Amino acid sequence: MQDMTVHEIDRMLSETRIGRLSMADRAGRPYTIPLPFCWTDGSVYLRLPLSGRKGAVLAENDQVCFEVDDFTESLDEYASVLVEGRLVRVTNLDEKLQIRRRNDEKYTRLRHGYRPGHRRSTPVEELPLRRVVVERISGRKKDAAPQDAELMIAGGI
Amino acid sequence: MQDMTVHEIDRMLSETRIGRLSMADRAGRPYTIPLPFCWTDGSVYLRLPLSGRKGAVLAENDQVCFEVDDFTESLDEYASVLVEGRLVRVTNLDEKLQIRRRNDEKYTRLRHGYRPGHRRSTPVEELPLRRVVVERISGRKKDAAPQDAELMIAGGI
Repeated sequence: MQDMTVHEIDRMLSETRIGRLSMADRAGRPYTIPLPFCWTDGSVYLRLPLSGRKGAVLAENDQVCFEVDDFTESLDEYASVLVEGRLVRVTNLDEKLQIRRRNDEKYTRLRHGYRPGHRRSTPVEELPLRRVVVERISGRKKDAAPQDAELMIAGGI
Repeated sequence: MQDMTVHEIDRMLSETRIGRLSMADRAGRPYTIPLPFCWTDGSVYLRLPLSGRKGAVLAENDQVCFEVDDFTESLDEYASVLVEGRLVRVTNLDEKLQIRRRNDEKYTRLRHGYRPGHRRSTPVEELPLRRVVVERISGRKKDAAPQDAELMIAGGI
């Protein structure tokens, strides 16, 4: 395992479709949900209505982490990035419009222009946009190295 | 979004290579790491030496969740499962041997017999095996339905 460079972390956050947002309630019980996201200007942006359990948990504790990973089928190469910080609401309309545009660009690029059935029904004023104010970002990776790859190659046990 | 059946959840946990273990320290700060795992007899088993930050966090709070997900490139179909519970150490040698065998079977099956450079150096006595004692399992999925797939198809924002 080795640390990823800032450039590698940036690229991974730009090229990954889904990450996992983790939070914890007041009793310390963790809760994790997978989400699409937009990484831009050093922040992770999420469309996140605060309904249901996630809303209740985040009302108690705004500390979050956001994880992305990538691995080969054989598990002999893998990488993961962890973004840690606090979740805040985005209210500025210009910022919301800009993030919506960048998010569209990201996912249109990642699916090579394919946007099946796309329609836009949420006015930007009502878009429940949230931002992870980043306190720490770290990335770890492992390139193929069969001679010392016991752990992952064995599937971990 | 709809709930997954018990059978769908079982199949997903059996067919997925990597999940994410989330925990939280005493201050409520979440922490997440991706890991291979073995789902068997209604428990998630992990090879998890309690070194570094995860060891410090888990020493404070043994409540965890373990998330797996799967999605198509276009994001118009996806599924995720969340296992919640407490992490305990496995000390029984018979249980450790059995889990090691089942874990080998799982990953050998998933990589179609391909086990590059595999070697086994950890005696089972020293295997840092841990089990999530499950308190709750839930699964949510979405099948392709372009007419109402705005959120994920837009990439979330």
